[in-house]
Amino acid sequence: MIAERATVVGAGSWGTAFALVLADAGLDVRLWARRPELAEAISTTHRNPDYLPDIELPTTITSTSVVEEALEGADLVVLAMPAQKLRVGLAPWRDNLPPDAVLVSLAKGIELRTGSRMSQVIREATGVDEERLAVVSGPNLAREIAERQPAAGVVASSREATAELVAAACASPAFRPYTSTDVVGCEIAGATKNVIALAVGAAEGLGLGDNTKSTVITRGLAETLRLGVALGADPATFSGLAGVGDLIATCMSPLSRNHRVGVGLGRGGTLAEVVASIGQTAEGVTSCESILALAAEAGVEVPIVEAVVAMVVDGQRPELIADALMLRRRKPEKH
Amino acid sequence: MIAERATVVGAGSWGTAFALVLADAGLDVRLWARRPELAEAISTTHRNPDYLPDIELPTTITSTSVVEEALEGADLVVLAMPAQKLRVGLAPWRDNLPPDAVLVSLAKGIELRTGSRMSQVIREATGVDEERLAVVSGPNLAREIAERQPAAGVVASSREATAELVAAACASPAFRPYTSTDVVGCEIAGATKNVIALAVGAAEGLGLGDNTKSTVITRGLAETLRLGVALGADPATFSGLAGVGDLIATCMSPLSRNHRVGVGLGRGGTLAEVVASIGQTAEGVTSCESILALAAEAGVEVPIVEAVVAMVVDGQRPELIADALMLRRRKPEKH
Repeated sequence: MIAERATVVGAGSWGTAFALVLADAGLDVRLWARRPELAEAISTTHRNPDYLPDIELPTTITSTSVVEEALEGADLVVLAMPAQKLRVGLAPWRDNLPPDAVLVSLAKGIELRTGSRMSQVIREATGVDEERLAVVSGPNLAREIAERQPAAGVVASSREATAELVAAACASPAFRPYTSTDVVGCEIAGATKNVIALAVGAAEGLGLGDNTKSTVITRGLAETLRLGVALGADPATFSGLAGVGDLIATCMSPLSRNHRVGVGLGRGGTLAEVVASIGQTAEGVTSCESILALAAEAGVEVPIVEAVVAMVVDGQRPELIADALMLRRRKPEKH
Repeated sequence: MIAERATVVGAGSWGTAFALVLADAGLDVRLWARRPELAEAISTTHRNPDYLPDIELPTTITSTSVVEEALEGADLVVLAMPAQKLRVGLAPWRDNLPPDAVLVSLAKGIELRTGSRMSQVIREATGVDEERLAVVSGPNLAREIAERQPAAGVVASSREATAELVAAACASPAFRPYTSTDVVGCEIAGATKNVIALAVGAAEGLGLGDNTKSTVITRGLAETLRLGVALGADPATFSGLAGVGDLIATCMSPLSRNHRVGVGLGRGGTLAEVVASIGQTAEGVTSCESILALAAEAGVEVPIVEAVVAMVVDGQRPELIADALMLRRRKPEKH
């Protein structure tokens, strides 16, 4: 089976950029926008006036705000909604999904209260079998993808053929998808990297340099791996594109909101001040407590996540991030 | 056994910074400089006028240019010489080494012509048993270490007790050593990261952003891991501080010469022009062919190293780096 038509649910920057990748790969794409006027603007001007407005979209992307219209004949349904709005957002889609369509999650985060991964939320909210579900992750900053800068990502599904179908549907000259069967690993890495990016940003805000930032990234990766493996992930995922690749992009890029919030906290701002100055919050701020709770339940030590929670939730000083690195007992690196 | 006296052979920036770490950890340190006038200046002014001149050194560091004097009572002999000068540089030390001293390699690279790792060169040049040898690696830019910014590293030795001895000797408030028994992994990672940094620099010089750079780093890490494992390394090393940690610091830092040479090549300069403008060459330029030869011998594909060799040695265009990422057959990430 080859996917020919895709629906992208959510016309934010990543949804819009991924629609462009699918179109570049040869698919007909319907981009669903919540607001009819945005859908109309995208269909007529071939630009998204709200996100990436300078990017001209391929004419094979059309937009609609009507669920049934968006789904007509869809082989793939790509879910590009924010993590904490996914469950509610899926309600109008559940009964309209074409029976053979494959669902693709672009969301990164852990649901508050339930501690669920995004694919778990999607399965619960739609009743779709896990073999019809894939997740896409990797070092994929939306703006650079939309500019067609060379990048790669991972398409993971418990069923290899599903991952291969989705990978074929998004393989474009500028985007190279690799396949994987490790959904848990991709999702834990994708959620936790936002928290680690807050820590790296805080180190930068404190005036620390590349050794410290690289150390926070590497030890952050180690605790992400420990958590993922405890939840059933394949350790190899964490040294791949959805693991370290996404982590590096998020931790280093000035385009990353998590990184920017971290820098503001490192410079001594309160969370309220930093969020006010940036104009929006960051997913790591929302997810850090859920991730710490997952780790506690699994009996896994995550000192950097713990320091971020103390800084973000309890308002403690950002120097805790450096302390989390330095004040532990000396030991072999592997443990 | 606890090490109390260390000799650091080589008063360049990393030798000087590591001497400072050892002194901060409580050791008496003799820093050997080739030129008597430099040794004299370090001993009297407690600064190294040639490298890191603004850093005040602890008074427990003294300097000498006399081999026998440098080695007197040394428990550790730390070798901070450039990779390609190590074999010749070790000749005067061989017959003067205290019989129980542990040798510590700070050198990163692969020897030209022989394809030997640094620990292999040291063993051949000194006759010292591998159980008396350790290597130190990690995200350790000398300037930031000298400024006592928090950082971590790996001390690896085939004998755990040797690694632990060296780790105890360099554990300071600002430097956190982890131990490992994977000498091969640390050395292959430490040499190959310089080549990958040339590729990342070239991508940056071409105007590409964080997705592409993160992808080059991640796929570069994957090929480094393949090569290392083929040579007997532990795959876990590559997701640690000596692997991805050092790679990130080297690829991202403006302090890295390899990165700067790569940027110049990416902007279209010839190697001669770029080296002339920076004033010195970079280890990745020297080692890339040896690493490609090691990979060929081991039957391992290293497309990014191959592209760097084509760019650096054969003068081909830097766009090859992006091609190396994008033009290969789609496949599972793990293989």
